[in-house]
Amino acid sequence: MKIIVAGGDGFCGWPTVLYLSNQGYEVSIVDSMVRRKWDDELHSNSLTPIASLEDRVKKWRELTGKDIKVYIGDLNHYDFLREVLRQTKPDAFVHFAEQRSAPYSMIDREHAVFTQVNNVVGTLNVLYGIKEMVPECHLIKLGTMGEYGTPNIDIEEGYIEIGHKGRKDVLPYPKQPGSMYHLSKVHDSHNIMFACKAWGIRATDLNQGVVYGLHTDETEMDPVLVNRLDYDAVFGTALNRFIIQSAIGHDMTVYGKGGQTRGFLNIKDTVRCIEIAAETAAKKGEFRVFNQFTEEFSVIELAQKVLKVAQQQGMEANVSHLENPRVELEEHYFHAENTKLKDLGLKPNLLTDKVIGEILQAVIDYKNRVIKENVLPKVTWK
Amino acid sequence: MKIIVAGGDGFCGWPTVLYLSNQGYEVSIVDSMVRRKWDDELHSNSLTPIASLEDRVKKWRELTGKDIKVYIGDLNHYDFLREVLRQTKPDAFVHFAEQRSAPYSMIDREHAVFTQVNNVVGTLNVLYGIKEMVPECHLIKLGTMGEYGTPNIDIEEGYIEIGHKGRKDVLPYPKQPGSMYHLSKVHDSHNIMFACKAWGIRATDLNQGVVYGLHTDETEMDPVLVNRLDYDAVFGTALNRFIIQSAIGHDMTVYGKGGQTRGFLNIKDTVRCIEIAAETAAKKGEFRVFNQFTEEFSVIELAQKVLKVAQQQGMEANVSHLENPRVELEEHYFHAENTKLKDLGLKPNLLTDKVIGEILQAVIDYKNRVIKENVLPKVTWK
Repeated sequence: MKIIVAGGDGFCGWPTVLYLSNQGYEVSIVDSMVRRKWDDELHSNSLTPIASLEDRVKKWRELTGKDIKVYIGDLNHYDFLREVLRQTKPDAFVHFAEQRSAPYSMIDREHAVFTQVNNVVGTLNVLYGIKEMVPECHLIKLGTMGEYGTPNIDIEEGYIEIGHKGRKDVLPYPKQPGSMYHLSKVHDSHNIMFACKAWGIRATDLNQGVVYGLHTDETEMDPVLVNRLDYDAVFGTALNRFIIQSAIGHDMTVYGKGGQTRGFLNIKDTVRCIEIAAETAAKKGEFRVFNQFTEEFSVIELAQKVLKVAQQQGMEANVSHLENPRVELEEHYFHAENTKLKDLGLKPNLLTDKVIGEILQAVIDYKNRVIKENVLPKVTWK
Repeated sequence: MKIIVAGGDGFCGWPTVLYLSNQGYEVSIVDSMVRRKWDDELHSNSLTPIASLEDRVKKWRELTGKDIKVYIGDLNHYDFLREVLRQTKPDAFVHFAEQRSAPYSMIDREHAVFTQVNNVVGTLNVLYGIKEMVPECHLIKLGTMGEYGTPNIDIEEGYIEIGHKGRKDVLPYPKQPGSMYHLSKVHDSHNIMFACKAWGIRATDLNQGVVYGLHTDETEMDPVLVNRLDYDAVFGTALNRFIIQSAIGHDMTVYGKGGQTRGFLNIKDTVRCIEIAAETAAKKGEFRVFNQFTEEFSVIELAQKVLKVAQQQGMEANVSHLENPRVELEEHYFHAENTKLKDLGLKPNLLTDKVIGEILQAVIDYKNRVIKENVLPKVTWK
């Protein structure tokens, strides 16, 4: 099966590329390399020293004999995208290639506009490109659990049956996104749903939870293949950030009360979920939605888990509650369905003390690379 | 009260400007004049010969002594918008200034991308402009009933209480927009809802039905004040298009079976609804949603109404069913709530034979201006 991974140089994309290549997929990467430029803009870095994409792909070929094609360019440039589709004729198109940080989207008006235009136009181009060049191609699009917000009822997978005034219908699940970034994902979902209905495109929207971890079996094969790892307050996400903060002796920064509850999954499950989606293509015209996470935790629960493991390893860890830079409920009901991927064969890697301990050990090697002034949040929602 | 009408040169905007000015509001128009350029692009025209905006405003001053300020520029240019807000310090900002044609948005990829970027970025800029310059200003935003699509349950005004698995919540009403244009309005609604919550902006989203009619009391005062009227298959809308088709002896073009049911209102009610919204500002942080239409009709019902009136006036009218260029249900349940504006004082101008007859008489004067090749649809959804 021929598969494109757009955003294949990123935190989720790169391990997905290697995993799929290892499984025998013919993988092509599309990436504009802009994620590395945002590090420059923010005077930040990956905790891990990442090789150039050229070196990454070369090393993979040396180790496995498997070729990964690379197309450097931006999905916002339609002529480029069209040419990639013409050359590769993919069976599936995995779309990670978006600006994925909520704080980045909230820096100011220009970052908000950039995030929405970049993500929405990139995805529109992919939809038009599939329609024009490869109408049978299965779009596998990364959404986010954050599209749903925190409703006071259970979150279903994409759709909900609503009974109302004696009638009923199955309708798209109402969305309450909490940042300009999360909004862009909701816009994408609506656009894709329409394209499936109007043009018969097949699509799977993966509403992914917060991803933690660093290594997969493939990225561990050689230091040149190491995955990027974000710890700064703009691109770092809750669990990974706490682990790195503990490793460098920084207080774990819980925003507000920490009762914010979200879905989480290990990066090892991300790559497998993509494979499951690719193996079981959506039907023609189907807009299929999976909630892609394995467990739910509140932020304070996570901090306490990390605290316990860090203390067992003899580290001085501590939890501190910062004024919440975001506008969000800090105590709320949260329960989301996530059975569809498991029904299709996902065997979750759960968050045990052992897993936290392994990530902690892995990051300690790199702790001198941390730029400390990037750890505390500077971007506020107000 | 100081009020900005963005898109104040357009079909809904211009009569709103005159009506509000007549009621004593201090009105400023913001308009990029792009709507007139789209006529050039499409080799089309307004059925009515419309004066330049300069002449329109000058004539109004001569007739009434009332000044209307004009700012020519695009909401997508933030520095321009910011300067307008600095100079005018509006109490309310009425936002009509979007690309508002579904067929135009479906011409090709570039028109789809243009429509979404133009509408979404324009509205984001208005939200940031209000936040930065006039945080108490009430945003009155034109949405569309088309955001809801045609669900099999009653359509509520913006929100719906959902009971689910023993719990309940009031959530944003699920949206199923049917074109790239309608999608842009859904994106706007989500963006505005977030801005209200995060920044305390006050906003009213008016989900407007299909507007029919031509004159208001003010536009009738002088030929120089006449409103524009669209009859072509790109910008013309169902009822007005049927009336004009009858006037020129063209078959009324019903798409498919004609069972498509929508909400409608007279342009005289549009201007009053804006006044009602302005008089009763949303609360700080409130995202208020009104469904702005007065009656529901199927497309075939409208055609038959026009047929009857045209025949009474001795015209040869006829209904023909074209292959539907859109992707939409042609037979479906449709019932939408519209009590909120009536509760605040709207007295609907209903669609009587007399009203149809008056519009028919008004358009006959201009029938020689019709460019016949623009009447049949050329843009398809596929």
